[in-house]
Amino acid sequence: MKKYSTIHYQQYLELEQLLSSQKPRSEELGVPAHEEMLFIIVHQVYELWFKQIIHELDSVVGMFSDDLVDERSIGTAVARLDRVIEIQKLLIGQIRIMETMTPLDFLDFRNYLFPASGFQSFQFRLIETLLGLESSKRLTYNNQPYDSVFPEKQRDILRGIESGKTILRAVEAWLERTPFLAFKGFDFLENYRKAVATMLDKEKNAILESDYLTDSEKSMRLNMLGSSDSYFQSVFDAQQHNILRGQGRLSLSYKATIAALLITLYNEEPILQMPFNLLKRLVEIDENWTTWRYRHAQMVRRMLGQKIGTGGSSGFNYLAETASKHQIFSDFHNLSTLLIPRSELPQLPNDVRKELGFYFSKGKNESV
Amino acid sequence: MKKYSTIHYQQYLELEQLLSSQKPRSEELGVPAHEEMLFIIVHQVYELWFKQIIHELDSVVGMFSDDLVDERSIGTAVARLDRVIEIQKLLIGQIRIMETMTPLDFLDFRNYLFPASGFQSFQFRLIETLLGLESSKRLTYNNQPYDSVFPEKQRDILRGIESGKTILRAVEAWLERTPFLAFKGFDFLENYRKAVATMLDKEKNAILESDYLTDSEKSMRLNMLGSSDSYFQSVFDAQQHNILRGQGRLSLSYKATIAALLITLYNEEPILQMPFNLLKRLVEIDENWTTWRYRHAQMVRRMLGQKIGTGGSSGFNYLAETASKHQIFSDFHNLSTLLIPRSELPQLPNDVRKELGFYFSKGKNESV
Amino acid sequence: MKKYSTIHYQQYLELEQLLSSQKPRSEELGVPAHEEMLFIIVHQVYELWFKQIIHELDSVVGMFSDDLVDERSIGTAVARLDRVIEIQKLLIGQIRIMETMTPLDFLDFRNYLFPASGFQSFQFRLIETLLGLESSKRLTYNNQPYDSVFPEKQRDILRGIESGKTILRAVEAWLERTPFLAFKGFDFLENYRKAVATMLDKEKNAILESDYLTDSEKSMRLNMLGSSDSYFQSVFDAQQHNILRGQGRLSLSYKATIAALLITLYNEEPILQMPFNLLKRLVEIDENWTTWRYRHAQMVRRMLGQKIGTGGSSGFNYLAETASKHQIFSDFHNLSTLLIPRSELPQLPNDVRKELGFYFSKGKNESV
Amino acid sequence: MKKYSTIHYQQYLELEQLLSSQKPRSEELGVPAHEEMLFIIVHQVYELWFKQIIHELDSVVGMFSDDLVDERSIGTAVARLDRVIEIQKLLIGQIRIMETMTPLDFLDFRNYLFPASGFQSFQFRLIETLLGLESSKRLTYNNQPYDSVFPEKQRDILRGIESGKTILRAVEAWLERTPFLAFKGFDFLENYRKAVATMLDKEKNAILESDYLTDSEKSMRLNMLGSSDSYFQSVFDAQQHNILRGQGRLSLSYKATIAALLITLYNEEPILQMPFNLLKRLVEIDENWTTWRYRHAQMVRRMLGQKIGTGGSSGFNYLAETASKHQIFSDFHNLSTLLIPRSELPQLPNDVRKELGFYFSKGKNESV
Repeated sequence: MKKYSTIHYQQYLELEQLLSSQKPRSEELGVPAHEEMLFIIVHQVYELWFKQIIHELDSVVGMFSDDLVDERSIGTAVARLDRVIEIQKLLIGQIRIMETMTPLDFLDFRNYLFPASGFQSFQFRLIETLLGLESSKRLTYNNQPYDSVFPEKQRDILRGIESGKTILRAVEAWLERTPFLAFKGFDFLENYRKAVATMLDKEKNAILESDYLTDSEKSMRLNMLGSSDSYFQSVFDAQQHNILRGQGRLSLSYKATIAALLITLYNEEPILQMPFNLLKRLVEIDENWTTWRYRHAQMVRRMLGQKIGTGGSSGFNYLAETASKHQIFSDFHNLSTLLIPRSELPQLPNDVRKELGFYFSKGKNESV
Repeated sequence: MKKYSTIHYQQYLELEQLLSSQKPRSEELGVPAHEEMLFIIVHQVYELWFKQIIHELDSVVGMFSDDLVDERSIGTAVARLDRVIEIQKLLIGQIRIMETMTPLDFLDFRNYLFPASGFQSFQFRLIETLLGLESSKRLTYNNQPYDSVFPEKQRDILRGIESGKTILRAVEAWLERTPFLAFKGFDFLENYRKAVATMLDKEKNAILESDYLTDSEKSMRLNMLGSSDSYFQSVFDAQQHNILRGQGRLSLSYKATIAALLITLYNEEPILQMPFNLLKRLVEIDENWTTWRYRHAQMVRRMLGQKIGTGGSSGFNYLAETASKHQIFSDFHNLSTLLIPRSELPQLPNDVRKELGFYFSKGKNESV
Repeated sequence: MKKYSTIHYQQYLELEQLLSSQKPRSEELGVPAHEEMLFIIVHQVYELWFKQIIHELDSVVGMFSDDLVDERSIGTAVARLDRVIEIQKLLIGQIRIMETMTPLDFLDFRNYLFPASGFQSFQFRLIETLLGLESSKRLTYNNQPYDSVFPEKQRDILRGIESGKTILRAVEAWLERTPFLAFKGFDFLENYRKAVATMLDKEKNAILESDYLTDSEKSMRLNMLGSSDSYFQSVFDAQQHNILRGQGRLSLSYKATIAALLITLYNEEPILQMPFNLLKRLVEIDENWTTWRYRHAQMVRRMLGQKIGTGGSSGFNYLAETASKHQIFSDFHNLSTLLIPRSELPQLPNDVRKELGFYFSKGKNESV
Repeated sequence: MKKYSTIHYQQYLELEQLLSSQKPRSEELGVPAHEEMLFIIVHQVYELWFKQIIHELDSVVGMFSDDLVDERSIGTAVARLDRVIEIQKLLIGQIRIMETMTPLDFLDFRNYLFPASGFQSFQFRLIETLLGLESSKRLTYNNQPYDSVFPEKQRDILRGIESGKTILRAVEAWLERTPFLAFKGFDFLENYRKAVATMLDKEKNAILESDYLTDSEKSMRLNMLGSSDSYFQSVFDAQQHNILRGQGRLSLSYKATIAALLITLYNEEPILQMPFNLLKRLVEIDENWTTWRYRHAQMVRRMLGQKIGTGGSSGFNYLAETASKHQIFSDFHNLSTLLIPRSELPQLPNDVRKELGFYFSKGKNESV
């Protein structure tokens, strides 16, 4: 470790550089518009938070990149994703600040910005890619590949990440290694299949024999049941899964999906609590981006109406569409379709259950 | 005024009644599910806030129902809409609380709720209707009219409001009465038309003569300009406006739209500040419902995946679609398309400008 | 206006400079601590928002600096203070992000920061000073003047502002110029005095003659009344006011205080709506700083416990104390003490009331 | 399980009862005040959330009441406390809604509420008591015991909880049972003591030998070190701890405190991750109440100024003081004082470390 000297706040935070980075175009052009400062600072703050998010995601990808993930890391990964989530909440809230600028205020300097556009934010694309958004699933924008606005060097970085490790792929590989799917003679999928069949039968009978449901209610409930049934069937059929995956409608491998289902169903077992928290965080990150995209689209619409953005896009429509299309962890969302009530859940054999607890629990109890 | 006696907190808030209104079905059925309490309380809190929102909207409709709106009322109306906005923010935040319930937790009691559903919330439909959402613009749900789940008496109330005064219609009538459109010899629309033409010409020339834009950039900018142009044309053409309105693509009358444009463009004039704030609040209320609908849809998807809701709906899709379709004040949003920079805005004649200030301003200055 | 060329996002936002301003000390010293990046970015984001707040406050002070404040400006000032408020909410929320760092994480790099400290933030002190916090009212810190950590040049700027125009002083001067205190023969203070006396008498009699209050309740209510009484007396006595002001317990001049009271009591009159909004915003800004200070103190306590801060302060205590002592607009808060129910409020004479409306209102009504 | 019938939203949520529980006094007295509805609904929503919080805290106390806490429960307890935290955030946000009512609006009906007061909320007191706030540590209010406003039956409930199981006492007992304090020959406290001594020595030497610190900086840093030293000493001395506890300055037993310190220092070990999360949640709940109390006090001040509350209290002062005095988990806050950097932390022996992981981890790795 090098020797270190004292340091002051101003110097530590590079404030001189930081606070001289706001250069309103309207001022340079001799027609100062008061509101341009806000426009610049809002975007700079976004970029600073983006840097922080990348810092966290990079570290999480790193933890999951080894074949053997240190268990200690899962807790740390969850904590770092929690931080990403807190930052996202702030980014969503920040839109309200931009909305304190009226559309008329914006027009005072909008013309000078051409063709600068948020679509040119490299860090934003980096985050999407790091999380696992693949080029093939992206909406095109002005009929150009999304990365055509970046210089070659930045495009290479994006491609490198996409073909290497992303959160989605690292977590998928980790899920595939879960040893519990067939474990100590307990075949999870087989037991789950039986439980689903029993449950559906029971529900069907209850509906048919009911003396308080009207006929139309009966048929409505049977209808609900039927649609559940077909969803359940798809999860028992690896081949069907792979077809959907080939069509881009599913992202995760069959094995990873089943592992995620197991973790979700038995999430209260001590050894599965943190892995479950990890999956939950990923779903929440996805949801938060979606919310941000949606709010961002609203804000653009409010600012421009039907005008075309400085980047040449039909702003609102493109942005609103990314909200629904650029989701990355939909497969985890969809797990909810496959859940069954705890009362129907196959009991874990005692020796499996013990293994899912802490080794120490036995000793601890004895030592009390 | 009647004589009044002392009162205690417990009694004032009817706490006995209020706190005995939570009756978990799972408990009644002898299979208590811890999480059902949350489910009940979250929805009850929603209903209490809905009651408050209705209380405010009712009062605002009342203020605007007379032919002559007391100016003092505009400030009060803005304050009450501000309150609605604050409540909406809370409602949006409240979704996070529901999300602390896992999908598995929900399954512990979901079956007992059939066929209860949020679609049966009368107050929610009342709010939509009071704001101005018309039956003809509503999505159908299970191929039934939206109000088929309500008893006749409640349906009548909804119809009565729809055919009577709503916020949308009351504000429209108030806008139509704005006297400034042709005022003291100043014809707003004529002046605005000229300003737009001048601005578009200037921009077009600037682009064509530019020596720093590439050809493709030039054509992109001209393209942006062209699309603006056609939007501007539509506002000058009352007939075109009425056709779009007939198709349900616009809501406000031509005259009200022009008045709203005038208020927006000259919003800094003292007499127009509060009216402008009113329009802004309506846009914000629209946006907040949209955000709430979207977040609510996300939450439902997370809870149910692709399962069908207890009310028999394909939950997520219906809800997500209402987010984009059930907007009421889109016409105010669209005004942004028609704004032009302040530097291009026609100057108001001095005597008009004075009238838009406070009478007193002159006296005040003199008396200092 | 100069000719302008195209610009790109990266360059417009000076991203190269901005995103190279994070230099973790732990990394430079060869012992990288993952969490230091968060620490830096959180503080940099604070500083960017501080710059924005200063931009807004400067402009508001500017508007109020002339002897004659353009009425159009009041609306603009309110909008800019609204923006400051939205930013403050974000700053308060941002503390949650810092709290995702555990105290143990912080210790990984804390030693390298000595003696850097948030107390060295020049912009933060600038904001306090711009709002109107005076040196004489500041807590000392380490027994040193608060500005001893800054170089001479920065100290001069702070002193210059303090002795020149601040929001507090500019608003005070503007209030003092309000012409309504004695206006068209209506003496506000005299009428208010009578109304207060009548009200207190009526309440006293109601209590004494009550047949449902117990004796102890009666004495409790009379006690409440008595304390109100003395507060009311102080506002009728300019001399008493000036004594309290000399002791630093009040900030505003007597005349400005009475004007603020009038604006608050008659805030529904059109001409007073915006001035009232202005006073409300100032109170809210005060409250938000207080909340931020308090939350910040909590966070420091959580991070350090009873340890001494890198700046040498007993962190928590100093910060918590500034929350209650560094309030600037307390006089507006205190106005609430002096309010009386609308039903007791002296009626404005008709000709005064008309003047407080818009001149145009009459014409408008006639023209309908 | 009983047979169950269909149910509708309206009936399930007892909406008829719920929505008829708002009875504005001003209306009953024939002088309707628009804003009283808000006042009622805000408080009713508080009470509903309080009921939910009690539901969660009760269940957590239950889980911790057995001598042997099922490990599965820790995860559930953390999730339920997370929910309490989310609700608290909403309660804090809700204050903004009350603040949309102006002080003048409040005066329109305030007189009719006498002597109702928030101090009469039984559920609020129940929550404080359930968390672990003891009567002896409460501020008195009007020189009366805090529970004198309640009927005997409710007082008994509060006393029963206080003398039975509270979150504070249940967690304390659970901490005391932690077996790791002296475990497999590893004496935690002894090792920690040595590490602290080594660290303090090293820091002292570094300061004394530094060639870049000025003399005054050296003495400042030695001063910081000294104060740390004495805090560390107190944790090594059980007797000293008990004296402070007797004085009410500490709440937890010596053994529980040391266990909490161990959990905090080694929180990354898998078996300690969830216990650490539990402690963090308790600190956060404490902080959130504090924030809520503080914001609530601010709001009361804004509404009443220096007036006396309907309950006869000097509102603001009492409330602001409870913010700092009614904290329950301060001992966990104070742990931060005792933390040392990870680099100085005593290494756990390998066999201890293995026991703190999951038993399964070994098998898992082998099976890959």
